[in-house]
Amino acid sequence: MTEEPQNNMEEPVVEGQQQEVVADDRLLRLAADFDNYKKRAAREREEYVVLANERLLKELLPVLDDLERALNAAEDHEEAQLEEGVRLVHRSLASLLARNGVEEIATDGKFDPHVHEALLAQPAEDREQGDVLDVIQKGYKLGDRVVRPARVIVAE
Amino acid sequence: MTEEPQNNMEEPVVEGQQQEVVADDRLLRLAADFDNYKKRAAREREEYVVLANERLLKELLPVLDDLERALNAAEDHEEAQLEEGVRLVHRSLASLLARNGVEEIATDGKFDPHVHEALLAQPAEDREQGDVLDVIQKGYKLGDRVVRPARVIVAE
Repeated sequence: MTEEPQNNMEEPVVEGQQQEVVADDRLLRLAADFDNYKKRAAREREEYVVLANERLLKELLPVLDDLERALNAAEDHEEAQLEEGVRLVHRSLASLLARNGVEEIATDGKFDPHVHEALLAQPAEDREQGDVLDVIQKGYKLGDRVVRPARVIVAE
Repeated sequence: MTEEPQNNMEEPVVEGQQQEVVADDRLLRLAADFDNYKKRAAREREEYVVLANERLLKELLPVLDDLERALNAAEDHEEAQLEEGVRLVHRSLASLLARNGVEEIATDGKFDPHVHEALLAQPAEDREQGDVLDVIQKGYKLGDRVVRPARVIVAE
């Protein structure tokens, strides 16, 4: 059955070529789809970033409004209103950050190099070595990621 | 050369099948690549949003720090420091928004329904019909997009 191989190769070559043309066509179409998908994905990625930013930036506008009201109170020397305004702005911004997954890093315990940055080590009576003594700058996490480590003073 | 077609079809069929197997293999690999790309793109889209948000949220931390310092000044009844602190916070937040492409919508002219929202129409002497008389709430754009229209009072 596999004999006489040399004298009629043309038929199979033509057959093969036709099938290759069909297969090439499917490949080309799939490759074109793939390419279009890549372009769309890159465009969408940019749009997602813009939209994500836009949502957050929009949430900041009322905070800016409240700040401007507080500043007006300051110009009118309405100290109580200024102070109340600042409290309001602080609550708004803190809750915006919390809503967006930002959490304060705990500092009531041992120094943890994953989330703390030691600015200073000090001798401290009745505290164990490695205890966090003081927080110079609060730290924050976003999910598992450390957005900013807490800057602390540690007992040596 | 294209004669004797019937009696040895097996060879060409096998040839064709082999080529189809090769082509199918390329198609399958391309389809698998495409599929992986889609999954990765979806994952990256989410990561981009998280990262975009993270950058912005991180920029907000110093604003929160300054607010807390201002609140401490308020608690210590250091009014001048409180006021200066609020000014600082306002400058920081306004410049953060500007850096991220947020612009105040102009209101010094005619009412423009694309960027303004009329809350009230009032008769106004020596002002033309459609002039913006007063701004109740500032509006903001992000590039070409209106993040929040300016809420205004218009001359009727």
